Amino acid sequence: MKLYDAEWAPSPRRVRVYLAEKGITVPMVRLNLRKGEHLGNEYLAVNDRATVPALVLDDGSVLEESAAICRYFEALHPDPPLFGTSPEEIGRIESRIRQVEAEGYAAVVYCFRNSAPGFEDRAESGNWPPLPQIPQLAERGRIMWDSFLQRLDANLQDREWIAGDRFSYADITAMVAVDFGISVRLPAPEERENVLRWHKAVSARPSAQA
Amino acid sequence: MKLYDAEWAPSPRRVRVYLAEKGITVPMVRLNLRKGEHLGNEYLAVNDRATVPALVLDDGSVLEESAAICRYFEALHPDPPLFGTSPEEIGRIESRIRQVEAEGYAAVVYCFRNSAPGFEDRAESGNWPPLPQIPQLAERGRIMWDSFLQRLDANLQDREWIAGDRFSYADITAMVAVDFGISVRLPAPEERENVLRWHKAVSARPSAQA
Repeated sequence: MKLYDAEWAPSPRRVRVYLAEKGITVPMVRLNLRKGEHLGNEYLAVNDRATVPALVLDDGSVLEESAAICRYFEALHPDPPLFGTSPEEIGRIESRIRQVEAEGYAAVVYCFRNSAPGFEDRAESGNWPPLPQIPQLAERGRIMWDSFLQRLDANLQDREWIAGDRFSYADITAMVAVDFGISVRLPAPEERENVLRWHKAVSARPSAQA
Repeated sequence: MKLYDAEWAPSPRRVRVYLAEKGITVPMVRLNLRKGEHLGNEYLAVNDRATVPALVLDDGSVLEESAAICRYFEALHPDPPLFGTSPEEIGRIESRIRQVEAEGYAAVVYCFRNSAPGFEDRAESGNWPPLPQIPQLAERGRIMWDSFLQRLDANLQDREWIAGDRFSYADITAMVAVDFGISVRLPAPEERENVLRWHKAVSARPSAQA
């Protein structure tokens, strides 16, 4: 088994934080995205979509997408459960994961990929024909980011963790989205006190360093 | 229990097809999206994100997001399994679901929401501040749609179903994406023979009528 990883990027970090929470160790190959190693022939032979992370299983098959890699490990190592156990909890966690992706991730990725130097013709992550940056989409991302933080704050008003009274993959997803936003200079949640309280709690877990 | 549904839109259809495959019947309320019923106060009190579908559970809590609703039912009624059983299959199905979402859904939604009349300031699904349409994003969606079909065709070259030798939620996800693309006049997969063969097979299942 071998996990293709990359520093700084949010999707690989989601997997590292998940593995740290579960106490799972996996051999890793760290790609240098700034040098474009994910777009080189060696990695394209592993994953022709050029997305990172990717997990190569012992039979040679490849799992892409951070949520899919984490669900694979969750099925292998159910404890501690990070995707829920009861039907209601399973549904609620998935609902929150996808809400954070559709609002927070979408916002920061719109903003970052459509404004950062070095992505001029690669405005979507993955392996595509040239896709030019769209400045108005970066602007849309900034509007969405503010709504995301506002809704996240309301969601955290009467619960300790994103999906209820237990830390879950929804918290990992949201922490990584918030930290990625801050790292690309979107506004930090300074006036959102529920987000601040929650963010302090998730960031204090040892897994946040992964 | 009550499922808020809507005709024509892809996310509600994913849930209906899933329920038909599982043989599950749920009381439904069908919203008229063209009349903006999802943006009215009555529905916003159920789901302030204004996304459809939403499932109201008997305790009054609400599950949003089609994949979350389906995973809730999957935990209640595991057979026939549509999200996999072995760790490898669970990971592979989730990987394919997310690939289809990131490529096919993203493409058609970019295209549709940024060009269709009636969405002038609502270029993202959900409840947002005004988000103007961006014609270049519709164009980006058209480029991505072609890549999506090409990659889907390659993926189906040596397998019967999207995630292997068994029909799964990945097939539902992909069928709904392809049909939604065709319905908004994106190119049908006419020259993609593997996609055509697979699309014929999924469309022949009774669930496709849901």
